[in-house]
Amino acid sequence: MMDGLAHVVVDWGTSSFRLWALAADGRVLAERRSAQGLAASAAEGFEAVLESHLAALGVADGVPVMMCGMVGSRSGWIEAAYLDAPLRLEGLAERAVAAPAARRPVRILPGIAQRSPSHPDVMRGEETQLLALAAEGHDGLVCLPGTHSKWVALETGALAGFATFMTGELFHLLRTASVVAPAIAGATDGGGATEAFAGGVADAMAAPETAGNRLFELRAGWLLAGTAPDTARDRLSGLLIGLELAGAARRLGRLDGTVLIASGPIAPLYRDALALAGAAGIRLRDAESCVRAGLHAAALAAFQTEGAQP
Amino acid sequence: MMDGLAHVVVDWGTSSFRLWALAADGRVLAERRSAQGLAASAAEGFEAVLESHLAALGVADGVPVMMCGMVGSRSGWIEAAYLDAPLRLEGLAERAVAAPAARRPVRILPGIAQRSPSHPDVMRGEETQLLALAAEGHDGLVCLPGTHSKWVALETGALAGFATFMTGELFHLLRTASVVAPAIAGATDGGGATEAFAGGVADAMAAPETAGNRLFELRAGWLLAGTAPDTARDRLSGLLIGLELAGAARRLGRLDGTVLIASGPIAPLYRDALALAGAAGIRLRDAESCVRAGLHAAALAAFQTEGAQP
Repeated sequence: MMDGLAHVVVDWGTSSFRLWALAADGRVLAERRSAQGLAASAAEGFEAVLESHLAALGVADGVPVMMCGMVGSRSGWIEAAYLDAPLRLEGLAERAVAAPAARRPVRILPGIAQRSPSHPDVMRGEETQLLALAAEGHDGLVCLPGTHSKWVALETGALAGFATFMTGELFHLLRTASVVAPAIAGATDGGGATEAFAGGVADAMAAPETAGNRLFELRAGWLLAGTAPDTARDRLSGLLIGLELAGAARRLGRLDGTVLIASGPIAPLYRDALALAGAAGIRLRDAESCVRAGLHAAALAAFQTEGAQP
Repeated sequence: MMDGLAHVVVDWGTSSFRLWALAADGRVLAERRSAQGLAASAAEGFEAVLESHLAALGVADGVPVMMCGMVGSRSGWIEAAYLDAPLRLEGLAERAVAAPAARRPVRILPGIAQRSPSHPDVMRGEETQLLALAAEGHDGLVCLPGTHSKWVALETGALAGFATFMTGELFHLLRTASVVAPAIAGATDGGGATEAFAGGVADAMAAPETAGNRLFELRAGWLLAGTAPDTARDRLSGLLIGLELAGAARRLGRLDGTVLIASGPIAPLYRDALALAGAAGIRLRDAESCVRAGLHAAALAAFQTEGAQP
């Protein structure tokens, strides 16, 4: 048993599982990470996967768990129906759905749907990262980059609207499965805000309509001039992020003052790209801290009366 | 033996093989088609594949063969080094490379490279489709849609420059391997210039920078509103073609008077998209006739003195 354990929180996505055991003040007592995403977990059973991690930490029966992410989708543990945007985020915890678990209360936070005929969109997991910002009454844009980057407009803490860009998925498809792939084969891991990256951002923002041509030029540059794999990778990354920034500005307005919620190597890439785009006053928040803080707040709201620790 | 057979011509690409036996006046005496693209043919042997088709038609030893396409690439039969753009196309046949064949003269036409540091690009096969237009002294844009759509600027018959767009490959990747795929699963074959297609073209041209967002909306529209698979497919097609047209106009200028070289269902799609884009005076040429005519002209130029029929 862990001293002071109040509840456990889990961010369970398509391809990853992250769990934190938290004290009532939000202190992290223990954590677990794995690559047990939805498909793997559905085969093994969601409760079995969760309980195996809890057992490894010695978490007692009865300790409640709050979760967010794709685990609440139709192909997850149990569907937590979308809340409709625009909305205030305070009520998110109340709308958490109980998952069928034998040993403890388990709740899954709902995602958010934008049921606009012209701009339908969905999110699952990012809404939880937004809770802290919303509670502060933040006014302005929030960027949550990733496989499916989210751009969210908050208006005095309410979620007014959002737009998802397939940037990370396009990068993955082009890097692994397209005619661009040979130009990047052998690139080192990572990648950074190099000159090639900056050139890609600038070119995509200056002429976003030529994206499909710029992508093919990565192959041609490799064939004709032997462009180095790292250079091609960084330029591809820059082109796609530049296209996203141009699109976000078009959809949601000026990028000044954007709060960037990101962790790992993607954070400096987007920060530098936003600077290249001329956006002023960018603030960076750590994505992992945000999702943990949001889950903690939701757990406090949902469990403090019913599941109080002795 | 075929009466009046002058030569055989072959368009040999990454995923298809098309062969025509031609009379000296270009009349088609016989044809063969197969899915024996580069990878399959490299395993079997290029000469063996070619000779098996010629044997099936009873083509005698000694009858010469003119080829174009990816068969002349580094991973083809023998590399026919790129000619550099800008260039006049008349000399293409003279630059054909002899493939090592035991029974007959076999030549492969070179592709074209644009060795521009800012806009590197390559083509193999399309240059042969352009021969007839170039011989007519055509002035203006030519669009050759496909997996990698080519937009070519001809100036009084000379190839001034070109730009490749990954439109067809992006469509394939998104349709089969992305989160958009489930929204299109179960769509009928084909697809047409429907209202959904036209909406995609218009939206992409109006705001090309939002492409990455529009693509994700296809998934969200399916999740939230149950968009029909055919509708999602046509809108995806429209979005990507609209982005291409906006990019071609940006790179190469006004689209009025474009000659569209296309065969099959892609021809009406691009014709209608160009009309939606407000391009006037579009003319359509059949791609298969163009490549055959180009190969025939090259065969006449290369073989008429050396390999004349009795």
